[in-house]
Parts: sequence; structure tokens; C-alpha cells
Amino acid sequence: MKVAVVGATGYGSAELIRILHRHPYVDLTQLISSSTAGGELKEVFPHLSHLSQVLEEWDGEELAEEVEAVFFATPAGISSRLAPSLVEKGVLVIDLAGDFRLEPEAYRKWYGAEPPTSPWLERAVYGLSEWAAPAIRQGDLIANPGCYPTATLMALLPLLQAGAIDDAPIMVDAKSGVSGAGRSLKQTSLFSEVNENLHPYQVGVHRHTPEIEEHATRIGGRKTQVLFIPQLVPMSRGILVTLYAPVAEGWTGAQVVERVKEVYREAPFVRVRGGESWPRTKDVQGSNFCDLGFHVDERTGMLVGIAAIDNLVKGAAGQAVQNLNLRMGWPEMAGLDLLPQYP
Amino acid sequence: MKVAVVGATGYGSAELIRILHRHPYVDLTQLISSSTAGGELKEVFPHLSHLSQVLEEWDGEELAEEVEAVFFATPAGISSRLAPSLVEKGVLVIDLAGDFRLEPEAYRKWYGAEPPTSPWLERAVYGLSEWAAPAIRQGDLIANPGCYPTATLMALLPLLQAGAIDDAPIMVDAKSGVSGAGRSLKQTSLFSEVNENLHPYQVGVHRHTPEIEEHATRIGGRKTQVLFIPQLVPMSRGILVTLYAPVAEGWTGAQVVERVKEVYREAPFVRVRGGESWPRTKDVQGSNFCDLGFHVDERTGMLVGIAAIDNLVKGAAGQAVQNLNLRMGWPEMAGLDLLPQYP
Amino acid sequence: MKVAVVGATGYGSAELIRILHRHPYVDLTQLISSSTAGGELKEVFPHLSHLSQVLEEWDGEELAEEVEAVFFATPAGISSRLAPSLVEKGVLVIDLAGDFRLEPEAYRKWYGAEPPTSPWLERAVYGLSEWAAPAIRQGDLIANPGCYPTATLMALLPLLQAGAIDDAPIMVDAKSGVSGAGRSLKQTSLFSEVNENLHPYQVGVHRHTPEIEEHATRIGGRKTQVLFIPQLVPMSRGILVTLYAPVAEGWTGAQVVERVKEVYREAPFVRVRGGESWPRTKDVQGSNFCDLGFHVDERTGMLVGIAAIDNLVKGAAGQAVQNLNLRMGWPEMAGLDLLPQYP
Amino acid sequence: MKVAVVGATGYGSAELIRILHRHPYVDLTQLISSSTAGGELKEVFPHLSHLSQVLEEWDGEELAEEVEAVFFATPAGISSRLAPSLVEKGVLVIDLAGDFRLEPEAYRKWYGAEPPTSPWLERAVYGLSEWAAPAIRQGDLIANPGCYPTATLMALLPLLQAGAIDDAPIMVDAKSGVSGAGRSLKQTSLFSEVNENLHPYQVGVHRHTPEIEEHATRIGGRKTQVLFIPQLVPMSRGILVTLYAPVAEGWTGAQVVERVKEVYREAPFVRVRGGESWPRTKDVQGSNFCDLGFHVDERTGMLVGIAAIDNLVKGAAGQAVQNLNLRMGWPEMAGLDLLPQYP
Repeated sequence: MKVAVVGATGYGSAELIRILHRHPYVDLTQLISSSTAGGELKEVFPHLSHLSQVLEEWDGEELAEEVEAVFFATPAGISSRLAPSLVEKGVLVIDLAGDFRLEPEAYRKWYGAEPPTSPWLERAVYGLSEWAAPAIRQGDLIANPGCYPTATLMALLPLLQAGAIDDAPIMVDAKSGVSGAGRSLKQTSLFSEVNENLHPYQVGVHRHTPEIEEHATRIGGRKTQVLFIPQLVPMSRGILVTLYAPVAEGWTGAQVVERVKEVYREAPFVRVRGGESWPRTKDVQGSNFCDLGFHVDERTGMLVGIAAIDNLVKGAAGQAVQNLNLRMGWPEMAGLDLLPQYP
Repeated sequence: MKVAVVGATGYGSAELIRILHRHPYVDLTQLISSSTAGGELKEVFPHLSHLSQVLEEWDGEELAEEVEAVFFATPAGISSRLAPSLVEKGVLVIDLAGDFRLEPEAYRKWYGAEPPTSPWLERAVYGLSEWAAPAIRQGDLIANPGCYPTATLMALLPLLQAGAIDDAPIMVDAKSGVSGAGRSLKQTSLFSEVNENLHPYQVGVHRHTPEIEEHATRIGGRKTQVLFIPQLVPMSRGILVTLYAPVAEGWTGAQVVERVKEVYREAPFVRVRGGESWPRTKDVQGSNFCDLGFHVDERTGMLVGIAAIDNLVKGAAGQAVQNLNLRMGWPEMAGLDLLPQYP
Repeated sequence: MKVAVVGATGYGSAELIRILHRHPYVDLTQLISSSTAGGELKEVFPHLSHLSQVLEEWDGEELAEEVEAVFFATPAGISSRLAPSLVEKGVLVIDLAGDFRLEPEAYRKWYGAEPPTSPWLERAVYGLSEWAAPAIRQGDLIANPGCYPTATLMALLPLLQAGAIDDAPIMVDAKSGVSGAGRSLKQTSLFSEVNENLHPYQVGVHRHTPEIEEHATRIGGRKTQVLFIPQLVPMSRGILVTLYAPVAEGWTGAQVVERVKEVYREAPFVRVRGGESWPRTKDVQGSNFCDLGFHVDERTGMLVGIAAIDNLVKGAAGQAVQNLNLRMGWPEMAGLDLLPQYP
Repeated sequence: MKVAVVGATGYGSAELIRILHRHPYVDLTQLISSSTAGGELKEVFPHLSHLSQVLEEWDGEELAEEVEAVFFATPAGISSRLAPSLVEKGVLVIDLAGDFRLEPEAYRKWYGAEPPTSPWLERAVYGLSEWAAPAIRQGDLIANPGCYPTATLMALLPLLQAGAIDDAPIMVDAKSGVSGAGRSLKQTSLFSEVNENLHPYQVGVHRHTPEIEEHATRIGGRKTQVLFIPQLVPMSRGILVTLYAPVAEGWTGAQVVERVKEVYREAPFVRVRGGESWPRTKDVQGSNFCDLGFHVDERTGMLVGIAAIDNLVKGAAGQAVQNLNLRMGWPEMAGLDLLPQYP
């Protein structure tokens, strides 16, 4: 199957290329990048200097003829303009940007821009693989979840579904490596600024807040509100989410772990830790795993959920390929049977 | 004034030496280390190779004759054995370990050992400088607060005192650089394990939990319960604490900031941020500053408090010297007028 | 083909497991670790918690019956004791330790111990894959090269062979990430010691000195002497070697690059950079690539060779698998078609 | 004494501010920054948020009236335009840029621009403090040395002077933390690019090459040629230089160490290591120390010199203040009695 990546010069794309390169059923034939069209991939990514691929200009017509699926790894606002015509021509679109993830009203409020026009938003499937497989298998426009929402929802949804937490705002204390900020030039992404530094940003106003709320509410079946506090950590990759909610009566930590293990029994990328072992970002580095851990604090009556993912894999490119696999009926692990790189 | 440091081979001691070295009123004449007695300081700390100090064996009698104050930077259980006889001989003791910080019952429960015998525990002053200055000025045995409790209490106490938060367990999501784990050999402190890694540890069972609760309750004037989740971050120095509590009716973010600024009006080491500026560990690196920030989230009705300190300075050696200054009636900033090192 | 790894708890082994896990022709059935025998792999490596392998005691008899090849990733002195009997029983041995890499005299001098007894040393093939393929294809005991020697020889051998450098001691300024020091507990491997630090170690006395000299002399065909200065860099993975030698008359930088490209024309893991592009350790991270660059400095008459490898892949586990592939007549890239992880 | 800093928004300036802040004889009254004039210092440097200084527009007339000394921490080409008129008005200028460091011809060749006009270049004193104190004491325009040249010359000059090395090109393998690249936005300075990366840059063409050669020749008294290879290391601060030259007959390592110790006997910032102890960048972090080490390799007949400095202190702001102290006849350590920050 021939596929293309649009927006081929960011870290998410590098990861898509790494994964698709050894996918047994996929041939990544086209890399689209308007900013560097005509240049060679190796100029943008010297680590791929043995490949001889060229970056091309966007041409929707041609693309629709040449490939069967397109990954968008573009800044906000691009895919909503370009994707619909591809889908209409029968091309499967998997969008790693945020364009198709929110209800129109939330989109307007948190993105400060107009959402994609009807019926595209309705048609888009929110591609949280473990929770939306049936819809993904039918989808032709898949909105790949954001990195923070993926980690948060993977820990939160089983709790909501099981009724293990009481109704109250959920505190989501989230920490991310800096590759999540992309490869663009910002002072806050400079090594000398990030190294030996740790700080919150976009406190209370991050766009992943409504994404978590909307899909927690929809999939979890209960109106859910979260206070989402993102924090930048001096590392390249990895997200750790620690969430806090009042535990429902009668639940022990062991019972929660048991239930979540049951929920993800057939999910090859989810590992639920127990005992005194807790998720660590290094344990998932370079892989599509999502590691989960839970603690019920009897003293305070709170339940703590912890999730670790590689933001560029399960939080972006890996889940996108997992969704492609689901959509095509391939084995879920095709191209994703990567053990974490350690150390 | 002649002073000594007991337990002179750890990171906290290196920081005490750095600070005291240029303190205008202090002469650090003795370094005690039973494990390396007889050796030279430069063997333990090559960065101090131009100093010609020797590490000495513990000798309480001699010490009491030669110095007027002693800093203990020893593992748990040492200072409770050694400090009392020094105090009895009129030596001021500032203890950086946890021996004298807790009520006996809490000590037994969380440390799994017998607390110091009466009347020493009662006699010890909990040296959170900004909140205990009157007692510190009278004290002869000062229990220097732990690193996490310092950061947490600096943000939490003004909220409790002002009634800005409702009565409920407080979530304390804490992150620390690895120097907090000391210089001893542990697999979890190896560079290859810590680098590009982020993970919780001692979830719900960390000894700083009762320390925060006890002193928040005592100083804040309201029975306080916290759920404390420590997390290890790939950096050498720095603590960032993010705490969550339900905001009391009527408080806006601006009001909270205003009130906290008022509380710390005369505290030279506290900087309260406002607007979209948030505390960052790098902004306090190498200095005794404690940076604070507050957010009231109207959507969820929660108040978020954020504190950043250098765990080895305000969280250990710096506050110890601040306490010495208070005790001696010296300017609070003597020896501590260090601007943060940036980057 | 069933294979085993002996010494299964270090970083080199983690990498062997990662690579062999997806090798199309290999089944890694046994992990031997005397120190943790009986325990589970996941206790040693939580990043592999989804695997249910058990660590076993060494039993040479049983091993020889069950597997066809054994990788030794053990400290110096173990494989020379254990490997011979395996080889005698027809098991292929690939040794990642230094036991079989040196002539007896050099071994005695630099390792301060007795070398393996005759005829095993003679029988061992030095497995620098690109330079010893014919011998490797016949070998039954393969001494996998050290990490520094691999990087150094890959840059140096083509120069020696082409006569592009004059006869003189070669300066080898080498820098390594700290995973090269292994997972054992040393103060110099602690995060707080390594982070923001850069320093030489074992100046002039490192065991890789004779390894480079012996094989440069033997393969390069000219008595070669090197001054090898290793330096520790604050990163987990990666080696960068910068070597200096007087350029032979008539060679320009472009000619050197051309010649080296020609030498490695059919080597799938070697990438020779030209122009103003230079090898970077990040460009090979997690992959078996060796990136090379060359500069002829007309002002000083010196030739600079630069090599970058991932010390755990091309410098250890990756080259070991490459050697297995060569030995078995499999495609050289089997199991090694990994693109570098970036960033 | 009132002083000003021109170009107040870079890392070198942050360091000047940190050092001057506690200098006993200096009052830093003006911060000039054309790019952010009118703004507050705290907007540029949140770590200085407790200071209430404002960034001002350049006004040479006013400056000359208000201050007695000006530090230039500006990009290349600024100080050569602005400094002369200040000097003419009797203001002492210390220039941290490269404008006044080279002979006109070398400047033209390596900077690709016109050098400052006569007589300013001749009038400038190259401020390598330990080697030019007499001239500095008389100077009114001091060209503060570059970071790499400082480290290199501190190790090299005693060798040249003593005749401990034979006449041959000297290999200078130099490694620097990324703060040396400044705070400007470059892809190569992004955290995700620098972290876990190590690579050479500007191979054979770096501007510090002629600076080292010119002053080694002039001060060392022997025509000196160097091949200078800079390499970027994933850390914020620190330079380690490893230099290689043929040892002159009769010199042992111990003799070299002895001689260099003798040379720097009265230099308070130089620490010469011996035995198996080697310079480490962490040992000088945040301080004005320059740590040196030497090895004579009998096998190869080479002498290795190793120097470690903090690039922002001894390599920039610290040496600038040291030069001010020399010039004013103050104690050389005034404001610079900072112990290294460890870890």
C-alpha cells in the first residue's frame, strides 16, 4: 500500500518515516513539504542520509492518484483545508494535527479559529486506538489524538467506565519532553533554556483540555471536567501524566489494577504495572507502549492514575500507524513490534 | 564565628561549603566525616582542590570547644544521637536531616524507628525561615526543613492562612532533580537510568508527607491532609511543586497573588510571579530564592499553587544558613546574596 | 536458530534482546545471568515487562544442547573460561567482552591477567564486520570488537590502506556516552556527576589502545601506534572519535572522501559524509550505522578523520548480530534494518 | 565605580550581571540593549525578576558621562564601531566580542569583514589575564579573549615558553557546551537537537584558530600553528580542550606539571592537577577557575595538555571582571571569589 506524509520536516514525521520504513505492508512513496519542496530529505534529516527521497510540493490531484493513504503531520489549520478533497477521492486520511478532534464550539473557543466545515468534523473518527477500534475500522478520516490526551485518556477511561472515581473535577498534572514543542525555533526550546529546567506553561489554557474533556465524556459516559496543567521537562521524548480524582467507595488499589488489566486484556501496547513498580517514560522510549499504574490512597480517599508514553510514538506517529493497521485489518502490531530503546 | 559541618561528603555539604566560604561572619573550620576521616576534602570534591581542608573524625568534646555552631548533613538517625550533647554544651545545632522534624508518633510510623528522646524533639525548632523567625531567633536546635516540604509549605501556608482554599485533601504533585537522592550509589541514580526518564517513586509513602501535614496544620492553623506524589526528573538540581486544592468562594487568581505578595512583603528570598509568568527551577538555580505562582481555575473551581526552589539551597544548605543568620541577628541575606546561575 | 545471551543484565544485553527480538531467523530462547538467576527479566529491565522470560543459571552442557549460538556479554575474564567448551561442542560463540581480542603479550600487559590458553586466542576471529567478513564466515569463535576500536578502525583503516597518511603516531581523541561504563554502581556514573560534565579518564592507559594498534597494524598493513584519549560525555549513548594524522602528499579532502566511499561501497551500515556535513552521534542513535567524515587541513598538513557510532549497537550488540548474519550467510541487515531514532 | 553593559540580553551578559552584582567596588548602573530598549531586564531574564533594572537605548554621549567603564557583550562588528569614541572620552572599554583580537589581515581573512580602523587595533590589549597583566594595567581598550582561545592558551603557553614541545602543528581538540552559541534562535541549538548528540562543527574554519595562533606566537615567542576542531557537547556550560604536540626531549609528565605549577604559582584562578586526577568541566562550573592537566606519553612521544573552564566565566564574563580588577588595581579575586557550583 502506497502512502504519503504531508508536513515531512518535523519530529512526528521523522518518527512516521522510522516506523513506516519497516512496515511490512506499507510503501512510503511521497513526502510533502511546502517549505522545503524540491530539497532532499537528507538535508532536513541527516540521520536519514542513506535514503534518497525528495521532498515534494503539495498536489492534491496527483497525490490522490498515487497513494491510498495520507498522514498529515502539519500545523493546526492545514489538514482541515486539504484533507476533505482527498477523502472525497477515496484516500484514507490520518490527521496528526488537532483540526478534527473537537466539537465546533470547543474548537472555536480554544483554537480561536473556525473549525472545519460540516460534514467533515462529524465524519472524523477520534482515533484513540484501544477505545475506538470499531469506528476506526470504518473510518476514512481519522483524527489522531493529541499526545497529552492519549496518555490521560488511557489511564482515565477505564476508571470512568468502571465507576472507580466519584464525580469531581479531575486534576491532570502532565509533564512532557520538549520534542512535543516541535522543531520550530522558539527561545523556550533552546537547549540552554530547557536543560536543568522544569516549569509549567499554558496553565489552564492548553488546547488539550477540551480534547480530554470531550472524549472522556463521550467514551467514559459521564460528563467529565479536568484541570490540565502541562509542564516542560528537560528530556527529548516522553510524557508522564499523573491524575488525581476521589476514589469511589469500596475500591482498593489492587482492585483498580485488576480491573484495568481486564479492560486492556487484549491490547498489545498497554502494560499495567502493579506492586511498587510505576510507569517510567524511559520504559516506553521509542515504542508504542502505554504503561499505566494506579494508587488508591486510603488516607486521603484519592485515586492516582499514572500513564507514561513516548509522545512521538503512542502520542503521535505510532498510534497513527496503529490506526492504519486497524483500518486495513492488518495485525495491530504490524510495523510497531519495537521494543523500547534502553537506556 | 567558627562553625563545623558533620557529614561532609554529600551534595548538601558541598553546598554548605560553597555558601559559607564567602559568608562575611562565618569561618568554616571543621569538616567531620567518619567514613573518610583523615582524607583531604579535595579527594572527595575535586572541584575544591584549591582548598586544603582535611576531613576529621567525630569528636563531640573537641567540637564543642572549638566551634559555636554545627551543621549536621548526615543520614537519618545520626544527628538525634550526636546533637543533644552538643546543644547541652552550648553549641548551636542546625540539623539538615529529618531527625527532629516530626512528632514522635509520626516519626515512628513513617521512619520505622524510634524518635529522639525527650525533651529534644520538643526543644527543636522547625526552621522554615519565613514562617518561624521568632522561634528560630531563640532556638538552640534547629530542624532544617526537608526540600519538598519547604517548597510545598511556602506555597501552601499563605493559602491556608488566608482561607483561600476549602477544607479538602491537598494534592501535592512534586518533581525533583536527582541530587535530592544524594551521592550514594543506587542504580536509580545512574546517569543512563535517569537521563531521558521521568517517573514517580515512593507513591503515597514518602516521609515528607507527614512533615508537610504536621507543619501545615500547626502553622496554617487548620488540620491539613496532603497526598504527596514525588517524581524524579532528569536534572541535577531543582524542585517544582504543583499543588491543587478547591478554591474558597470569592477568590480570584489576582487576589491570591496579591495576598501572597503581601504575606512575603519583607521576605528577601521569595518572588511571587503574576500574569502569564510561572516559576521555573532554572530561575532559582544556585540561589536561595523560592519562586511562587498561583492560578485560580474558574472552570473547575480549583486553586493551583506552584513553587520552585533549588533543592540544595533553599531546600537545604541555603535555608540552613538563612536560619543561622536569623539566629545570630545577622542580615538575613548574609552569604546568600547569590544571583541564580543562568543558564 | 536458537541462541542464548550470557550475562543478561547489562546495557549491551538489553540491546541484544531489542535487536534479536525482531530478527527474522533467530529465537532468543535463553538468558543466562549468574547474579540474578531464577529471577525474571522484567525485574532487571522493567522496559521489557511484557516479556515473560526467566534468567537462568549457567549450565554449559545444557546450553550446548539447546542453542546453536551464544553471545557473551560478560565482564572481562568470564568468556575465556566458559566459551572454549561451548565451541568444542559445536556452538558458535560471539564474545562481546575483550577476552579474545589481543595477542597474549598485549593482553598480559594491558589487562594485567593471563590471556586465554592456546589455541583459543589464535582461533578467535576479530569481528570487525566490514574488514573481516571472509574470516567471520568461517569462524566459530568471534571476538566482537570494542566500542572505541570499532569507531576508530572504521575511520582509520581506509586511510592506512590507501596510504593517505604518513607514518607517525596517530592521535585518537575519543568521546563516549556513559552507557559504555555499564550498569554497575560507580560514583563516576551517577547522574549528578555526569550531567553538565565532560572529562578525560584513563589517559594513556585505556585497554582499547592495544586493540586499536594491533588490528590497525594487522589489517592496515603498517605498524601503527596510537595515542588514545577517552573522554566521558553527558549522554547515554554514542561515541565520537576524532583522529589526527599527517596527510600524505597529494591527498585532498575530496579525494579522501572519494576513496573511503569506494572502500565502503557495498557496506550497508557505513555512511561517508562530505561537504560541510559532519558525523553526529544523534544521527546513528539506536542504529547500526557508522558515519564517517574527513578533512584535510592544508594549513597544517594534517588529516582529520571523524567517526560516529552508537556504542551499544555498532559498538556492541549490533555488530555482534551483523557478525552472526555474516557467519550464517543471512542478509547482513537481517534484524538490523533500524533507522536511527531522531530526536 | 559605575559601569555599563552593552548588549545586555545574552548569556554572557547574564553572567556579567551575576558577577558584578556582588562586586565590592562596582555599581552596574546601565544595561544597554538596542533590540529590547525600554523593556525591563526581568522580561528578558525572569531569573532576575527581583531586580528592577530597565534596558536602555545606546547613547554614547550620555554613557560616557555616567559610567567609567563599559563592557561590550555584542555580536561581531558592533564594538569596533561604538567603542573608540567611548575610549576617546576616557571610558575604559572591555570588549567580549572578537573585534579587537586579531591582526588586520587575519581579521579580514577569518571574519570576512574590515577590521577596526587604526589606531584602535594596535591600542587594544589582548586580555588574557594571567599572561598580560602589565599591559592590562595600562590599557584603556581591552580585547577579552574568546572562550576556546582562553582554555587553549592557558594550557599551551607554559609549554611553549618552557620549550617542552617540539616545533610542529598543534592539534587542538576542543569541546564546548552550547551556551557558547548564544541565545539566538538556531535549529542546531534546540534542546531536541543538542541532547544526546555530540558533533564537530566549523571544522578547520573556526575564527578562534587565528586568535590562538596569533597570541600563542606572540606571547609564546615561537611561530605557532594549530589545527582547531570545535565540537558541541550536550551541556549548557563548560569547555574542555585537549591538545596534542610532540614532547621535547627530556621532559617527563611530572616535570611538565611541576613547571606549569611554577608558572601559575601566583595565579589564583589556575589549578594544575597531577597524578591520575584530570580537569573536568564540572569542577569549574560557575567559577573563574581554569583547571589544567598534562600527560607525557612515552610510547608515542606526545604531550597532551588538558584545560577546563566555564566558557561563560573564565571564557567570558569572569575574565572580563578579572581584567577590570587588574586594570583598577583591585584584588584580582574581587567579585570572583566564587566556588564552583557542584553538582
